[in-house]
Amino acid sequence: MLKLFYTPGTCSLASHIALEEAGVEYETRRIDFSKGEQTTPEYLAINPKGRVPALVTERGTLTETPAVLAYIAQSFPEARLAPLNEPFEFARLQSFLSYLCSTVHVAHAHARRAARWADDPAAHEAMKAKVPKNMTDCFALIEGSMFAGPFVMGEDYSIADPYLFTIAGWLEADGVDPSQFPKILDHRNRMGERPAVTRVLAVVQA
Amino acid sequence: MLKLFYTPGTCSLASHIALEEAGVEYETRRIDFSKGEQTTPEYLAINPKGRVPALVTERGTLTETPAVLAYIAQSFPEARLAPLNEPFEFARLQSFLSYLCSTVHVAHAHARRAARWADDPAAHEAMKAKVPKNMTDCFALIEGSMFAGPFVMGEDYSIADPYLFTIAGWLEADGVDPSQFPKILDHRNRMGERPAVTRVLAVVQA
Ligand SMILES: N[C@@H](CCC(=O)N[C@@H](CS)C(=O)NCC(=O)O)C(=O)O
Ligand SMILES: N[C@@H](CCC(=O)N[C@@H](CS)C(=O)NCC(=O)O)C(=O)O
Repeated sequence: MLKLFYTPGTCSLASHIALEEAGVEYETRRIDFSKGEQTTPEYLAINPKGRVPALVTERGTLTETPAVLAYIAQSFPEARLAPLNEPFEFARLQSFLSYLCSTVHVAHAHARRAARWADDPAAHEAMKAKVPKNMTDCFALIEGSMFAGPFVMGEDYSIADPYLFTIAGWLEADGVDPSQFPKILDHRNRMGERPAVTRVLAVVQA
Repeated sequence: MLKLFYTPGTCSLASHIALEEAGVEYETRRIDFSKGEQTTPEYLAINPKGRVPALVTERGTLTETPAVLAYIAQSFPEARLAPLNEPFEFARLQSFLSYLCSTVHVAHAHARRAARWADDPAAHEAMKAKVPKNMTDCFALIEGSMFAGPFVMGEDYSIADPYLFTIAGWLEADGVDPSQFPKILDHRNRMGERPAVTRVLAVVQA
């Protein structure tokens, strides 16, 4: 059975929701950052990057949110979580996932994980100070030219939706007022009402 | 015809080589960063992110290296640039692409693009100072547990190979001695001899 390693409040929520939307059986294992569980020898044997998510499959372990999401969509085509037979539409979807992963998530990470990129505490403060502007710029681009509506890619729900929902959930903590982005805020509200999402949040927030 | 917007010395090299390996017809347009061409209104109309690569197709424009690479592999299956019919193997490949994009490329970008993440010049210096360590850590992980050999994913050449080749080409400039990573250095040397790579480099370095 698939097994997802997750941590509350992190990007692993996107993969967690996608599994639930796919309607498949899966197990979960919580990794507690406050206890440093992401860097224990046991967990590093599963994911040497020391991060979540990690999805353990019968064939081996997968990491990286865009790869895990596309794997879920491709493995369970009946759930219709991606336009699997249209290379251009699939690429548009992947471009969105990659932007969230490489630019938006990274912009956010400079608030709490600045120590990854510099050792000087003053530099950490300087990075933290720029997070609201960078997250605002990213979400202005998404709102203005990337979000098709009603779902991220248009009429069809896809793996991009739980990923945007996850990162949009960080805006207030990043010092950004989400009401500037009415489409994204409406999407976040609608996502929060989906049965799959409420089921996952009940587990994660327990 | 496909049209690639590229800049010498950047991550667009990976997509450029993949197009050449696919053996398809494509055009290129050089974007000169020294003239700020990535932020002209003309280019922002093509890619509002103001970055390269951008691949213009008959259906629209694609950005983000992992998405562009997977699109090339899926659009030209006869070039065998990805394990298209095996979701797990495809996901392993995508995980590698995503790691390069979201972690390794980002680690590198803190040397020259630190202004993205902080305004204070002292913070830029602090970020730059940590680049050699971060790039070393990333390449140690790739050498130690991700690179299968002889190609990135194993016996078969794939879109991961030009992407690793591209980023491994930045090591010296990032203050890292590549001889610490014999598998990656050997891969880089072998890649540099591929006809598709020499053809692309002749254009890019012209
Ligand atoms: N590119 C990876 C990033 C994974 C990542 O950074 N996860 C964070 C949580 S959002 C983490 O595990 N951080 C733990 C740490 O930095 O110690 C992905 O998209 O899956
Ligand atoms: N996540 C994007 C990143 C693209 C990117 O950052 N490209 C750089 C060159 S390696 C760029 O265009 N920089 C121009 C600038 O920052 O002004 C991808 O993988 O394609």
